[in-house]
Amino acid sequence: MAEPRTLALDAMGGDHGPGVVVPGAAISLVRHPQLSFVFYGDEAAIAPHLEANPDLKARSRVVHTAQVVPMHEKPSQALRRGKGSSMWMALEAVKTGEAHAAVSAGNTGALMAMAKLILRPMRGIERPAIAAIWPTIEAECIVLDVGANIGASARQLTDFALLGAAMARTLFHVERPTVGLLNVGTEEVKGNEDVKEAHALLKDIAAPLDYRGFVEGDEIGQGKVDVVVVEGFAGNIALKTAEGTARQITHYLKAAMTRSWVSKVGAMIARGGFRVLKEKLDPRRVNGGTFLGLNGIAIKSHGGTDALGFASAVDLGYELAGSGLLERLASDLDSFHNKLGKASETAGPAGGSTSGDGGA
Amino acid sequence: MAEPRTLALDAMGGDHGPGVVVPGAAISLVRHPQLSFVFYGDEAAIAPHLEANPDLKARSRVVHTAQVVPMHEKPSQALRRGKGSSMWMALEAVKTGEAHAAVSAGNTGALMAMAKLILRPMRGIERPAIAAIWPTIEAECIVLDVGANIGASARQLTDFALLGAAMARTLFHVERPTVGLLNVGTEEVKGNEDVKEAHALLKDIAAPLDYRGFVEGDEIGQGKVDVVVVEGFAGNIALKTAEGTARQITHYLKAAMTRSWVSKVGAMIARGGFRVLKEKLDPRRVNGGTFLGLNGIAIKSHGGTDALGFASAVDLGYELAGSGLLERLASDLDSFHNKLGKASETAGPAGGSTSGDGGA
Repeated sequence: MAEPRTLALDAMGGDHGPGVVVPGAAISLVRHPQLSFVFYGDEAAIAPHLEANPDLKARSRVVHTAQVVPMHEKPSQALRRGKGSSMWMALEAVKTGEAHAAVSAGNTGALMAMAKLILRPMRGIERPAIAAIWPTIEAECIVLDVGANIGASARQLTDFALLGAAMARTLFHVERPTVGLLNVGTEEVKGNEDVKEAHALLKDIAAPLDYRGFVEGDEIGQGKVDVVVVEGFAGNIALKTAEGTARQITHYLKAAMTRSWVSKVGAMIARGGFRVLKEKLDPRRVNGGTFLGLNGIAIKSHGGTDALGFASAVDLGYELAGSGLLERLASDLDSFHNKLGKASETAGPAGGSTSGDGGA
Repeated sequence: MAEPRTLALDAMGGDHGPGVVVPGAAISLVRHPQLSFVFYGDEAAIAPHLEANPDLKARSRVVHTAQVVPMHEKPSQALRRGKGSSMWMALEAVKTGEAHAAVSAGNTGALMAMAKLILRPMRGIERPAIAAIWPTIEAECIVLDVGANIGASARQLTDFALLGAAMARTLFHVERPTVGLLNVGTEEVKGNEDVKEAHALLKDIAAPLDYRGFVEGDEIGQGKVDVVVVEGFAGNIALKTAEGTARQITHYLKAAMTRSWVSKVGAMIARGGFRVLKEKLDPRRVNGGTFLGLNGIAIKSHGGTDALGFASAVDLGYELAGSGLLERLASDLDSFHNKLGKASETAGPAGGSTSGDGGA
């Protein structure tokens, strides 16, 4: 028997609030009956949706809170005003151990700012990252950072590799996930200094991951590695560009299949195949950005998604919750940062600053 | 009557050399009969391909050169050793005015290094950019920089906007092309400092372009703007990611259409539609990276392409050659840089350095 796992859900987040969050949880519960939920938000708005799902109601608790973080509020404002909001309370529940993970479809910037404040970065982590699950022709891979921060130092990129590998270990059930560093061109030595330096660090690292060197943008979807590491600006652009290209090709395909009655007939006959394709390309299947590098798991669902899409984010919360991911990760990070500290001590004063790296 | 245009072709560049370059030129000549060519490379290797195309032969000249830049040579080495190579000579022909543009399928880094040395950056341009033509659901747009350099200052990004607008004016026949700055998120003020500063410059600029603000990765393929401006690291990753996603979906589509005999029959009936789609997604249709910001047009064809793909790069050379693009661009750049110089003079010593900006 799998052990019970509790998720804290921000019932008010996203464009549709409880109308999507509660039915989404109900879908996920069918798949993972050992889940239980705490919903944070307006009790009166949540209640009717729970009433409609008796099985869910039996495994849920509602904590009323009147306050909601607006979808377009700036992170700094959300931090000042957001204490006691549904988003805040869901994260608090992870901190206190009441829940194993939090899921919110609310304002990304506010969620990240609150998560950093409430859950705090893990020891030695300068910046948390947002990890996306990216469908590949093989299966799926993890890409991070897809937008928590702009830019990343070599050390931060190396931390991202460890964070992503820990997530891949949990989700893909491989002990030494393959990791690649996103770069431009492989013909010659290219890329910026941070990427080159991270490459050197990762080649030497004794972490439980299998570093495969540089990968290019077109290799993400080929499933060349389990984890693709990139700083947040290029990572976010890559993710959005892939989404846009998928929509663009779907558009072309529809146009091509409706251009003549013959094509229409053919497409009608092949509709089983098109249904498979449509499912494959359905963005709701892989909804959920995971905040990694904090002392607790928080997942951001797309704000405009429906119940099926929100259920994917809840599924992800289920997979990552209570899996020992963070404990294992903490020890991997400590070991890497200790070595980094020792290496720069050995290198002497000329080898660069050791500040911050060696400390507990 | 359209006036004659001469292109200088590096016959030895790319994976296949004259076997692709010469037949590619022949295809383009059928479309643009006013073209004439100078082929640079091994005369003995070029001759048989020209013999096979009498129409092309009648409009071509061959300049023999024994030296070839290897595909994987480092740019610095190519510069030292490459004088007199087929690539070098093709660029020289643009400099001397013998040809209106040069096209090469050779080593990108070497071509850019030589082009900078031989053609020289335009007055006021710190860094040339590589511009890609990106298919959209509307038509096409131009994305730059897709990999000439890593990173770009606000001023360089603004220069890219002017360069891209000049190219769009020529290719798309619009007087004030729409321009967007690639960024992450629009919910709040995001992005790095250079992008924010470029945004401020572009909002005020009195250039012949219609600045539309930030665009995100998924909006490139939607055809939201004619020109998308981004620094080369993220731009290259976006381009490659889009290519990879297109291949990935084609893979899914094939799998979906062959999964059962019913799908196969349907796909067979709809094959006319699939042919249209295949043409739409054919990467050979938009082959060619344009080097912008130099005193002459140089085009990089994909190294592994076939004659049809090389012909697209030649077509692009035809469109951009002799169009008055550079003359017009030079005056737009001067006007922008003069204003920039004056603005920083007005701002006084505290407003930043005016060095280099105001000079002729």
